Amino acid sequence: MTVATANLALDAERLLAQLQELGTIGQDSAQGGRTRIALTDEEKAGRDLLAGWMRELDLEVRVDQVGNIFGVLHAASAEGDAKPLMMGSHIDTVRNAGALDGCYGVLAGLAVARAYRQARTLPARAIVVGAFTNEEGVRYQPDMMGSLVYAGGMAVQTALDTVGIDGTRLGDELARIGYAGTMVPGTIMPHEYIELHIEQGPVLEAEHKPIGVVENLQGISWQKVTIHGVANHAGTTPTRLRHDAGYAAAACIAHLRDRVVAAAPDTTLATTGSLRLEPDVINVIPRKATFTVDLRDPDELRLQAAEQRLADFLAAVADREGVTIHTEPLVRFQPVVFDAGIAGRIEAAARRRGLSSMRMTSGAGHDAQMMARIAPSAMIFVPSRGGISHNPREHTDDEQLILGAQVLLDVVQDCLGAH
Amino acid sequence: MTVATANLALDAERLLAQLQELGTIGQDSAQGGRTRIALTDEEKAGRDLLAGWMRELDLEVRVDQVGNIFGVLHAASAEGDAKPLMMGSHIDTVRNAGALDGCYGVLAGLAVARAYRQARTLPARAIVVGAFTNEEGVRYQPDMMGSLVYAGGMAVQTALDTVGIDGTRLGDELARIGYAGTMVPGTIMPHEYIELHIEQGPVLEAEHKPIGVVENLQGISWQKVTIHGVANHAGTTPTRLRHDAGYAAAACIAHLRDRVVAAAPDTTLATTGSLRLEPDVINVIPRKATFTVDLRDPDELRLQAAEQRLADFLAAVADREGVTIHTEPLVRFQPVVFDAGIAGRIEAAARRRGLSSMRMTSGAGHDAQMMARIAPSAMIFVPSRGGISHNPREHTDDEQLILGAQVLLDVVQDCLGAH
Repeated sequence: MTVATANLALDAERLLAQLQELGTIGQDSAQGGRTRIALTDEEKAGRDLLAGWMRELDLEVRVDQVGNIFGVLHAASAEGDAKPLMMGSHIDTVRNAGALDGCYGVLAGLAVARAYRQARTLPARAIVVGAFTNEEGVRYQPDMMGSLVYAGGMAVQTALDTVGIDGTRLGDELARIGYAGTMVPGTIMPHEYIELHIEQGPVLEAEHKPIGVVENLQGISWQKVTIHGVANHAGTTPTRLRHDAGYAAAACIAHLRDRVVAAAPDTTLATTGSLRLEPDVINVIPRKATFTVDLRDPDELRLQAAEQRLADFLAAVADREGVTIHTEPLVRFQPVVFDAGIAGRIEAAARRRGLSSMRMTSGAGHDAQMMARIAPSAMIFVPSRGGISHNPREHTDDEQLILGAQVLLDVVQDCLGAH
Repeated sequence: MTVATANLALDAERLLAQLQELGTIGQDSAQGGRTRIALTDEEKAGRDLLAGWMRELDLEVRVDQVGNIFGVLHAASAEGDAKPLMMGSHIDTVRNAGALDGCYGVLAGLAVARAYRQARTLPARAIVVGAFTNEEGVRYQPDMMGSLVYAGGMAVQTALDTVGIDGTRLGDELARIGYAGTMVPGTIMPHEYIELHIEQGPVLEAEHKPIGVVENLQGISWQKVTIHGVANHAGTTPTRLRHDAGYAAAACIAHLRDRVVAAAPDTTLATTGSLRLEPDVINVIPRKATFTVDLRDPDELRLQAAEQRLADFLAAVADREGVTIHTEPLVRFQPVVFDAGIAGRIEAAARRRGLSSMRMTSGAGHDAQMMARIAPSAMIFVPSRGGISHNPREHTDDEQLILGAQVLLDVVQDCLGAH
């Protein structure tokens, strides 16, 4: 394997400036964050800014049928153009978001392209920077939709016909903001895909590692659980005659931690983020409880075991409490194992820079998990202060951001030099 | 003890007609129920109707400073007037209520007065029918306010200065609807107080008993529990680093049933009716959970023990999960033991009519618990179909309503004959 020397220079200042500028689009001065939900006017403004920056670098800007944007730095040869190296992430955000989630990976990709342009060097293979549509899934479900479609996991028409929480049709909104492209998703078939991202978790900070080598990505199982009981007066209904949907929900949520997670405490994660009771009155036994279950594990069999343990408990509670329990699967992704070769290159690049790194599992979903279906893929993580993301307090030190981008640039040169 | 024969006749038809007519005031055709929240225009209409019916019976209508309405059927002698027998309840309702809660006790009281009028007999002691202000506590806290003030448990001015959930001042609304009376609460000091009410619970129906002899009333402890944790990403935060306010809440609610109620399963009741998570998003560990705890027991020491068990567990969870837990007491009423003498008379009256009865505890709060502070008091319950109340489906068969009123009339005659 040829190890390329890091002979291209990263324009760190420009990368940080672009992160800051993109972060002003959709900014909410009252809350301190920014909101660029997919295919809104604010997100269109972000897309316009990004596409402009791509053109400044003389990249060919291509937009596919679901609005994924690609900036292509063509190779010296047609042969090199046929085996593009793709980097990417997304620029849509959740509500009141930080400035880094997604944007960092896209703009660091641009920084790699910029390094080639500034050195007036054409890469041996094409370099493509992608910004995928609707990674966050705030307005349209599922999340990671653009990369899912790109990797062939969802039909274009299905994506376009998706109706959002505001009643809009995705395809209409895409056309409205001028990003209904013509390229068929999957047209640019990457030779490999590399995504740089903030960790969005506390592990790198806790372990004092500037670089995370992401070797796999957790499987995710999202369910909505609805329990129907019987509303009754809190003071007059003996416990033995109760069918308390709220208690049943609490018992399930406690069981998730106390029994389901406890069965594989180092890998299985369980979270109930949303819970509603009806009628939600202090002295009325809840007739209905609705809650979500987010289960994750990097091992598919362990994830299935966790799902089964929950299902068994739900059945037992329904029987014991005389309530009916209905579960609705919302999202189910199998764990993803990233490409060992690219992971090794990331680790080696960090080592060459004298940076300590650690192998890790991505707990969050990323476009890379979709791209891994069609190309060898891996991810590079940098620390998130306090593990906080999806929040205006999301923060990574500038120095850490630069180190991550530097490692990305090194890995790209390494990959391009090796083939 | 002289046992009076039941020589007065109950006008059952008129009682049922009045229940139905009062039930039309504030009716909501869409939802099937009626809404007469204290001191609204709808409740004023109910008051006007009731006061008119009192005047039809030639009762002296008196209104006190917090708007409690009393219809007085004077005795044959001043001596008899000095020892009035009071019956009563309330005519305000929750939102979308049934027609019976409260109204039944007031209108059955009127039926007792009517029996005397129709027989052209003056009672040995005055008979007073009371309708207390704001029993439900929907708009102004606390509930049972009118009887609480009447019994000296709250200053008149404090009640009048109460600000409602709609920002209104109780005293202003009372004046606006024309029920800011001049009588000082407590002026008519009852010799005994008897309240007829629907059970609002499932016990009489389940036990096939037409009459409940209410010998005590549960103590009530309402708390609001607020748990502050740390919001974090559901996929990237290892379990050991979590401070999950939602899980902590679920553990507490499960503990309430599994440990606190289990310590006294026949008497202690625990209910969490309301629970909210923040930010309430499927893949975010809740930073905040707020829930209510409704604890009840007819024994004060057991109620205190239940409160202590909960407090101990909250402290343990806070320590174990690294969350902070704050509890706010909302309502605290000690258990009430009703008058054994009146309870015995109710039981005897039922027996004379060939009706089976059972001694029971009231799980709901009632004006009788306030009146018990100033006079020997007791309650008579009739069955509630399915235990349902505070709901348009609240129902008691006409026959059962008539039997309850008949027992009330018998008990009144018994009490008046005995003194």
